[in-house]
Amino acid sequence: MKCSRCKSLAQVALPSHHAGFCPDCFNLFFSRQVERAIRHFRMFTHKDKVLVALSGGKDSLALFRELHMQGYDVTGLHIDLSIPNSSSHSRAVVEQFCEGLGAPLRVVNMADEGLPISEVKRKINRPVCSVCGKVKRYYFNKVALDEGFTALCTGHNLDDEVGRLFSNTLRWDVSYLSDQSPALPAEGGFAPKYRPLYRLSEFETAAYCFLNGIEHSTAICPYSAGASFPVRKELLNTLEENSPGSKLQFYEGFLKTAKPLFEAAEERDGYAVSPCTGCGYPTSAGLCNICRMKEQVAAED
Amino acid sequence: MKCSRCKSLAQVALPSHHAGFCPDCFNLFFSRQVERAIRHFRMFTHKDKVLVALSGGKDSLALFRELHMQGYDVTGLHIDLSIPNSSSHSRAVVEQFCEGLGAPLRVVNMADEGLPISEVKRKINRPVCSVCGKVKRYYFNKVALDEGFTALCTGHNLDDEVGRLFSNTLRWDVSYLSDQSPALPAEGGFAPKYRPLYRLSEFETAAYCFLNGIEHSTAICPYSAGASFPVRKELLNTLEENSPGSKLQFYEGFLKTAKPLFEAAEERDGYAVSPCTGCGYPTSAGLCNICRMKEQVAAED
Repeated sequence: MKCSRCKSLAQVALPSHHAGFCPDCFNLFFSRQVERAIRHFRMFTHKDKVLVALSGGKDSLALFRELHMQGYDVTGLHIDLSIPNSSSHSRAVVEQFCEGLGAPLRVVNMADEGLPISEVKRKINRPVCSVCGKVKRYYFNKVALDEGFTALCTGHNLDDEVGRLFSNTLRWDVSYLSDQSPALPAEGGFAPKYRPLYRLSEFETAAYCFLNGIEHSTAICPYSAGASFPVRKELLNTLEENSPGSKLQFYEGFLKTAKPLFEAAEERDGYAVSPCTGCGYPTSAGLCNICRMKEQVAAED
Repeated sequence: MKCSRCKSLAQVALPSHHAGFCPDCFNLFFSRQVERAIRHFRMFTHKDKVLVALSGGKDSLALFRELHMQGYDVTGLHIDLSIPNSSSHSRAVVEQFCEGLGAPLRVVNMADEGLPISEVKRKINRPVCSVCGKVKRYYFNKVALDEGFTALCTGHNLDDEVGRLFSNTLRWDVSYLSDQSPALPAEGGFAPKYRPLYRLSEFETAAYCFLNGIEHSTAICPYSAGASFPVRKELLNTLEENSPGSKLQFYEGFLKTAKPLFEAAEERDGYAVSPCTGCGYPTSAGLCNICRMKEQVAAED
């Protein structure tokens, strides 16, 4: 197979784009998909102060490198979750990566915040994955607002977005469907949030990391066993194999056609957020989830 | 496993209903699901003259038998498609079935109508499955209107409905999504259309046929090879296996939450139907598909 752009030997085949690329042209393809996402949703410009959440996985590191290469003013943010046999490894990967790139990094340690996930898991009677997601989103937002960042980016790729859309659609959850977008504006105490990799698949970010020598963490979270998400991802992969391009079509069709309808319904029937009585960050309850969790974790056994 | 109702030996396991039934209680379960569908959508009463489309497959025969047993005034309608090595078999199955039941049957022969599907396939440069669907829907509607039936029923089961919903959702096709329902009222030249089996899965109608000795046609249409529908049905089956009940939840959630939003959008932006200039039955074009096809088939080679 020849590179669709320069006709040398292709190394990455992309059936969903009816294309194949050599390493250099694949990097160009990758950059253009990111540029297109940023431009289409007017995410940010070179004047913005951009905070990029870095888990240490391939997606966040690929995004950080790409935005850095494109000359954006980026700072990494790593949340050290204090999960035994996992968090210290991820943190070391992120620190080494940022050092190599010569880019600034902020680390927030959940143990220092009174919310080590190992303790949270022990004390809170809920699936830990959703709790962990809440904790991370809270601190992403807090750091962005407290430290004057004008854009907050996460490395969610097309497969993440489509997997989430699929789950929300199976439940026809209007509140979640109205809110799913690669670009959420600043409002009600939330920093503006962006997902510049939404046009790129998991395979494409993995190829980008491989071709650019990005050493990312591949450790599986010791708490993630039994999550139902992988089964649905598998289904969507079968669909994509059977009809290449269907993931991006499904997602873009949603954004263009269906999301406005769900948004209008949610504006009519949805409920508002207001500042948490504890920490002041937005919540739909009086005292936010994070403040309640901190109380539970701090309480005597 | 014991029957969830009478505690004798269960023969049919239904994980999506957290139940298992012996043959008698399964029949009762089946009847109640049909009753519930008819009642919830106020489909028809015992005063209505009900036309039931009979392909000869398990779903349509199961529906016909069930409505007949429940005392509804039902007449079968079979469309003989004139497909070699297939149609004559289906027709014989339907004729024998109605005779056994002592129920009236109308047969419309596509060869007599100038539209044998074998000829249509030869002359029309489109996937034949969609053409065949159009032809059948046209004659279902025509016979219902011409002969004074007040309800038109088809044997679409839950898997059919969910498969169609899934495909429409993957494309976010507002026009189709606004129109998908187990009950479509009479309007704009269309007879009222109902799908009383929408709460019952393919497995459940198959079990009903088996337990009640219904001999249905199992012949696969010689023209159906390569249809993409089976792949998606397979995906949905995996989803259901992984989380029993998710098909019915997906479909009912759609009807309750999302369909009204798509309907409102379609009313705002959709286009109207009017009588065909040829046959007078409703179409969104001037001359309807069926009249155009008849012209093409009648034309010299």
